[in-house]
This record gives sequence, C-alpha cells and structure tokens, in this order.
Amino acid sequence: MVMWNNLDTLTSYQELSKVGRVNLAEVMSGDNGAERVKKYSVPMAAGMVYNYAAKQIDDKVLEALAKLAEEAQLTEKFEALYNGEVINTGEKRMVLHHMTRGQLGEAVEADGGDKRDFYTGEQQKIAEFANKVHSGVIANAAGEKFTTVVQIGIGGSDLGPRAMYLALENWAKVNNTFKMEAKFISNVDPDDAAGVLNTIDLAHSLFVLVSKSGTTLETLTNESFVKDALKNAGLDPAKHMVAVTSETSPLAKSDDYLAAFFMDDYIGGRFSSTSGVGGAVLSLAFGPEVFARFLDGAAEEDKLATNKDMLANPAMLDALIGVYERNVLGYPDTAVLPYSQALSRFPAHLQQLDMESNGKSVNRFGEPVNYPTGPIIFGEPGTNGQHSFYQLLHQGTDIVPLQFVGFKNNQMGRDVVIEDSTSQQKLCANVVAQIVAFACGKADENRNKNFEGGRPSSIIIGDQLTPEALGALLSHFENKVMFQGFVWNINSFDQEGVQLGKVLAKRVLAHETDGALKVYSDLFNI
Amino acid sequence: MVMWNNLDTLTSYQELSKVGRVNLAEVMSGDNGAERVKKYSVPMAAGMVYNYAAKQIDDKVLEALAKLAEEAQLTEKFEALYNGEVINTGEKRMVLHHMTRGQLGEAVEADGGDKRDFYTGEQQKIAEFANKVHSGVIANAAGEKFTTVVQIGIGGSDLGPRAMYLALENWAKVNNTFKMEAKFISNVDPDDAAGVLNTIDLAHSLFVLVSKSGTTLETLTNESFVKDALKNAGLDPAKHMVAVTSETSPLAKSDDYLAAFFMDDYIGGRFSSTSGVGGAVLSLAFGPEVFARFLDGAAEEDKLATNKDMLANPAMLDALIGVYERNVLGYPDTAVLPYSQALSRFPAHLQQLDMESNGKSVNRFGEPVNYPTGPIIFGEPGTNGQHSFYQLLHQGTDIVPLQFVGFKNNQMGRDVVIEDSTSQQKLCANVVAQIVAFACGKADENRNKNFEGGRPSSIIIGDQLTPEALGALLSHFENKVMFQGFVWNINSFDQEGVQLGKVLAKRVLAHETDGALKVYSDLFNI
Repeated sequence: MVMWNNLDTLTSYQELSKVGRVNLAEVMSGDNGAERVKKYSVPMAAGMVYNYAAKQIDDKVLEALAKLAEEAQLTEKFEALYNGEVINTGEKRMVLHHMTRGQLGEAVEADGGDKRDFYTGEQQKIAEFANKVHSGVIANAAGEKFTTVVQIGIGGSDLGPRAMYLALENWAKVNNTFKMEAKFISNVDPDDAAGVLNTIDLAHSLFVLVSKSGTTLETLTNESFVKDALKNAGLDPAKHMVAVTSETSPLAKSDDYLAAFFMDDYIGGRFSSTSGVGGAVLSLAFGPEVFARFLDGAAEEDKLATNKDMLANPAMLDALIGVYERNVLGYPDTAVLPYSQALSRFPAHLQQLDMESNGKSVNRFGEPVNYPTGPIIFGEPGTNGQHSFYQLLHQGTDIVPLQFVGFKNNQMGRDVVIEDSTSQQKLCANVVAQIVAFACGKADENRNKNFEGGRPSSIIIGDQLTPEALGALLSHFENKVMFQGFVWNINSFDQEGVQLGKVLAKRVLAHETDGALKVYSDLFNI
Repeated sequence: MVMWNNLDTLTSYQELSKVGRVNLAEVMSGDNGAERVKKYSVPMAAGMVYNYAAKQIDDKVLEALAKLAEEAQLTEKFEALYNGEVINTGEKRMVLHHMTRGQLGEAVEADGGDKRDFYTGEQQKIAEFANKVHSGVIANAAGEKFTTVVQIGIGGSDLGPRAMYLALENWAKVNNTFKMEAKFISNVDPDDAAGVLNTIDLAHSLFVLVSKSGTTLETLTNESFVKDALKNAGLDPAKHMVAVTSETSPLAKSDDYLAAFFMDDYIGGRFSSTSGVGGAVLSLAFGPEVFARFLDGAAEEDKLATNKDMLANPAMLDALIGVYERNVLGYPDTAVLPYSQALSRFPAHLQQLDMESNGKSVNRFGEPVNYPTGPIIFGEPGTNGQHSFYQLLHQGTDIVPLQFVGFKNNQMGRDVVIEDSTSQQKLCANVVAQIVAFACGKADENRNKNFEGGRPSSIIIGDQLTPEALGALLSHFENKVMFQGFVWNINSFDQEGVQLGKVLAKRVLAHETDGALKVYSDLFNI
C-alpha cells in the first residue's frame, strides 16, 4: 500500500537538506572531474546515456536522494499508476499513457474492455488508414493522392506532435520514409489558420482534427475556418478531414469525417504524443513503421523507469536531482538545451509537459503545500542559445540548472570541414565546452571576464536522433515529471489552473462584464 | 554630468523598498479596478498604449519610481548615449543603434564621418540593391529573378531579423508588398543548413551572410556549407551571395559577394535589427518602403523614451516597474505573451535582447553588484500558452510577472464566426480575461480550483501589427532593457559571458583537453 505524504513531512527530506553542499567548480576540476564524468552516468534506451557528473551532487547527496526515493515510494507509485490505480485524484481518473507503448504491469480493464487492446487497436486502425492514404486507396475527389497533412489542435494536441514531427522530418527525408509534409494550426488567432492555408494545396491536403472532448473552442473554430476554405475551393470537407477524439465526443460518430480514431480520459493532452493524438499525424507523415519505432524507444525507456535502483533509473534520478535543486538549493528555473536543430521545439513541448503537470500549489488532496513545486522551463537549441541568453546563464546573478541533449551524429549526413573540423564536431565540441565552462568557470582579474562556475548541468548523449531515441527522450521527461509530482505529493495529471481564464473569456464574449474586465474589453472594442 | 552609482546606494531605492505593498487582487476588483485600467495607461507610438493597471503598483509606488528615475538620471544617461558618449565601457564603444532610425540629439562623428549619414547611406545602398533584385536588374546567371532570400547569421544576426520577418510575412502578403520568401540558417548543426537547403530552389536563391567581425565560426561554416551546395548545383556562389559586415572585416572587400553592406562596432548584434543586419533581408523580403515604415515606428517610440516625465515615457516606466518586481518584490522571471501568431518568435528575440544585455553580475566598472539584475525571459504566443504553461502561471508556487501584447485587428482579414464571435474577438477576449484572472483570482472552497490572484501583468495594445507598430514594439523593449541596465548600473552592451565557451570549444577541437573536458570529448568521439 503506497502512502501519499507531503515532501516536508519525510524524514529523508530533512536529512537531504542537511547533507553538505558540493562545490561544483572544485569537484569538476582535474582528475576528480574526469572520474566524475566516467562514474556519474547511467544508460538509457536506444543506446543513450544520462550523465549527471556536472550536477551539484556527490555520493552523499545521491545516498540521501535514494533514501528519499524509497521513503516517497516512487517506484511503488509508478507501479500503482501503470496497474490502473486512480492516480489523477482531481479528475478521478486512471493515468494510462504508458500503455500506448507497452504493458508494464497487469492488464487494466475499463469501459468494457482491456485498455491496452483499445490503444493498440486504435493505432492499428490509424496504421491501416495511413497505408491507404499513402497508396492512394484513400484519395481526394479527383482520385489524386494526399500530399500534406494538417493537424488542427492546441496544447497537448499541438506542441508534442509538432515537436516530434520536426524532430524526425529531416531524418525521414534522408531515410526514404517521408510520406507527407505536416503543418499545424493551433492558435485561435485567425492569422494562424489563414497563414497555414496560404502555404498549402488544399485539394491535396488531409486535416486531422484533434480534440478529446470535441468541445475545445480554439480547435472547433479553426476547424470551421478550414471547412470554409475547403468549401470555397469547391471541395467537400468530409472527404478531407479525420478526427482524433474520445468515443463519447460529438465528433465520434459524425459524417463530417473520413474516419475517427479514439482516445480516452486516461491520457492527458500533454502525455498524448504516443496515443492517436501523435499517432495519426506522425503515421501519415512518416509511415506507421516509423511511429512504431518511436513507441518502441519509449517502451524501452519506460521499463528503465520501473527500476527500484535509483542509479539505474535515469528518469527517477533526474527527477530527484531536480527536486534537490528546486527545494534544497533553491533554483526556480531549468533550461533545456538540445544541441540538435531537429529538437528546436522539444523545449516548448517540455515546457507544457512540466509546467502544466507540476505548476501546482496544492497536494493531491487539495491541501496547500509549503514548498516550491514545478520550476519554470525554457530553452532553445544550441548553438543558437549560446549567441543569445547564455550570457545570463554564465554571468547572471541567478543560477539556472541546465539540461543538455546531444548526439554524436547528425541526421542528414551532409557536412562540411572548416578549420579541420566538421560542423557536427563543432556542435559536439560546443556542448562539451559549455558543460565544463558552466561547472568550472575561470578566474580572471578583470571581474567582467571572470566566470564563477558552479552552474550545474546534466547531459543526455545519443548516437543519433532516430525514432527510437526520440521515443526514449520523450518517455524520460514524461517519467521525470511524473516522479517529481510523486515527490511533491501533487496531482500532475489535472490542470484546474486553465479554467478561470476560459470562464472569464466567455463572459467577455457574452458582454457580461463589469469592473476592470469591462474596461479592458472596451480597449479592444469587444 | 551623469553619475554612475549602484542601485543599492541610491536613497530613492531605499525609499522605494519601504513603500507599502499593493494587494493586486484587491485593487483590481470592482469600480476601483475599472478606474485603474483607465488611469494607468500611457500612449506609445503607432497608436498603441502601454497599460500597467494590473501591475503591483499604485500612486505611491509610482512616485517612488519617478524619484528613482530622477536620482538614477535615466533620461540624462539616454541623452549621453545617443549623443555619442562611450556607454559600452567594457568594449570602450559608443552605442548608436538609435541612429539607424533617427537623430535624437547631436550629430556624432567617428571613423572619419557622420555616423547617421553612414547608417542611412548603407540603408540607401540596400534599398537600391533590393529594388534591382525585385526588378530583375540583378538576377541569376540565367537572367531569372531571385525568389528567395536566405539569411546566414546567428544570435543577433538571426533572432531579431527572423522574428521581424515572421511578424510581417502575412501582413506583406495581404498588402501586396511581399517580394521574396525569406529563410534563415543559424545553427552550426549541419542539419540546420541541410534542412533549409532541402526546401529551396538554389538557382533562384540569394544568400545574405551576416557577421560583423567576419569571423563568426558558425556563420562562416554555414557559408561554406551553402557555397558547396551552390557549386554542386553548377552555380557560382559569388553571384548568389551578399555580405553584411563591418568595413574592416575580411568579408568587406571580397570578390565572393555580389555586394557588401556595412555596419560598425557601435551597434551590438542584439540591437541590430534596424541596421543593415535586419535591413538587407527585410528590404529584400518586403521592399525598402516597408522597412522604412518599420524604422519610422521605432523612431517615433525612441522619441517617447527621451521624455523626462516617467508617466509619459512607456519604456522607462516599464523598465522601472520591472526593477521594482525584480529587486523589491523578488520575482526572478518575466513571461512575454503576445496574442498574435505573427509574433511567434518575438519572445525568442526579447530573450536574447534582455538576457544577454542584463544578465550580468558586475557593474559598469567591473565591480560585483549585491542585487539581482536581468530576469529570465521566456514566452510563447497566446492562446497557445494558455493550453501549455499557464497552469503554473496561475497556480504555481512562484509568481511570474507577465507582459502581454495584443491587437484589435488581425493582419490577414480572414475570419470566421463561431458561437456569435469571430476568432479575433475570441483572441482578444482571452487576453482580457487572462489579465483579470491573474490579477484578481477567484476563491473556491475546493482548493484545487482556487485562484489566489495577485499575479501582475501589463499589456501593450495596438490596432494592428503593422510595420510601424512592430518598429515601436522593438524600440520599446530595446529602450526598456537599456533603462534597466542604467538602473542596475551595469553595461548592457557587452557579452563577456559568451567567451569562455568559445575558448574551451576551440581546445576540444584542437584535442588540447584534459580532465572532465577530455572525458566528455571522448563520450562524443571528438
């Protein structure tokens, strides 16, 4: 039986706070630093490693973190989750996104069936549909193949699938698995839909409407925008659109769609990239086999997250170090810095995943907590970030923990040698240099050129950003966020914080306003 | 004579710290809230307003801030800056980016000439060049018009110009001033260049190489990558490439370029969007007239920044409220949230502008400061952010000040009515609702659905995102960052924090490593 307790009630947390602080600049210097880099590394799926040598930890801190993991019953809670316990206490729902890519524990029955069969069955339907689109069995009214797929969705129906698409777009092109270009419409700003429609050939475009409830206002508005455009072009919207939604949604049985693929309430939007939400657009773009490889990578990484040995469980280890940084060392932000242009929108996805899951002030029983929870997440790809905000990261007054990601090889196999090194070598040399620069700093008599160091980072290193590696990366961060939610004793799977804005926006549109709301509305002539 | 003193030595700062805190949820409620929204508003250029009613301020705080502005001699320092004083003490340089869009004070002579004439002269050369490209006088070897312009640059040569291009791309299309599509190559990751080259027609592409020093390794590497591609396609790189650089750079007099346009050391990369760095690509994309309108908007806003009355100087007011939030209220982050899809990359530009300028720990004389300086900046467009990280902003344990931007009208004039309102109305209703939701919150017995409120924001409201409005927005934030640097007594115009990483990366590439640096290099097989 798992016990749900606030972090500040745990003995191991009190002990963790008392462990001596690590002087990062000191321990990362010389031979000791070299030893740390060799030692503080744990294998991930898809041949990757999570290296945490440049974090402000040592064996004593790790020992205390392992005790915290044990007292907080992190693996037991994960087990309860994947075995179908109602972990989402706010909405009284199970949390089953892991099941879209494997079966970690017992079979889970709900809604009159086996949930794993349900998710794999929907993915099978999507695969068959995608194959028919690619072969031209499903085609436009003129019998011509669809060439473009446009996802209409917002939040988790947009950020994750978009980030995954960009991550594999060029990989698929050079590996001859690129089937259809994908575009995304998300914002209720009409310029978003209009801008995308301006760049595509409507007659050869297939739209994927994604809304679990079938009531997301932004998404239904954009659907209508697109339908108008299709009709104006003399096309039948019902022949150009599929839906990804829940079986109980108004979209589920509608004749407005070529097909409908189903999800359910046990998978939250920000955890839905491996469900049909990501599955439809990615299978259409790259083929179902590539999407299956992505799921395999995630499944392999999920298995590692079940490991009770913290030092062999990268997601749990990453989570605990993050808690140490947030609650003991007092750092409020984390920057995610992939040295891979293909991961350009991966930080934006993690921003939602992390901040929407753990940006909470009450525990899972609705009682206020007395400690900081989820951090601010931001990031851009290196080396671009180096020429942008790294100045503050190196010499600013606040310390920001860093999460690097890098790959030995690029995706496209085209490169150039300048000054005796390839671009890929320069890219890798830069991330290596940054880790050491942040950790060790460099004293200079000119204080303006002085680097204090002591700025912690970790790095995930892989051979290449393949579908498997991407799946493993995604799983790693999903599970990290989940474990942190367990440690903070919060419900990482609801998002009540988005409701008030929706309610007030409706009042504004209904002209039921007073006070400040009315004057602001007047300023916009609403 | 201006005096440069640390913030914590100023009497007015001590007084500011003692002013009573404002209970935002309270003052923004009811009639008082309505009055605040009407009262706490200041006109900006291009018909915009900066409304700060939902900030944690009242007349007493404003009075204290005005005294701080006076004691810190903010307008005097700005005056010294635009009259050519050596404000960039680290690099011993003047700071003249305002001059690219107007003449605020005295003429400034340097390098044997009038600097204003120099900047406008270069812009004139760019305009003439762009017109010749558009008319086909300058064309490819086959005599065909160039259709695509590709900027090769990184940091300030990428983020600002890219954000400005995206901001006006659709506006230009519907206003029939769209001349050439623009693409951007920045990252040293070879997949960046390869990915962009995959999507363009090389024979009809013109490349703009941007590097002030002519030695930026990422940019020269990408130039070489592009040249190889051009040669492999049987094209002469010298007929497809222009340079934007300083007159003393190795690129300046090279035969490798169709033309070279000049900048100088008095304009830092992150402040260079209104110089040739932004001027070449934007004039080619939209025509010189559009770029001139963008400059006009910036010039108009710059004039407002010279106003000694803080309440009529939006950039200075914004800067001071930000200092109050950072140093007195203790908030370490600021989120920038444009309710305009066209501004999708504007937050990324502001991230560089702000964090690279003010992420410093020493004052302008190289002495450590004892107070926090520049905050972390992050952001995404609304309504997307609402479905992502707003959960934390509403209900997280930390308070994040917010900077909203919104426009009454969209750019493209296409819209759809759903549930009795247009998309544009929904967009505006959402930003209005968010301001009030963040400020006032809403009590709920279920603590999980409770909103504390007290979360401060300001909003810039405009009619439409036109070139003038974009120029004014850019100027507003540039000047805000400048004023904050003055208050913190730091040099906002150098970036020594980027140097150490460069040095170490070179050592890695030369295999001159030991300790941690060597082991990390081995992990990447460098």
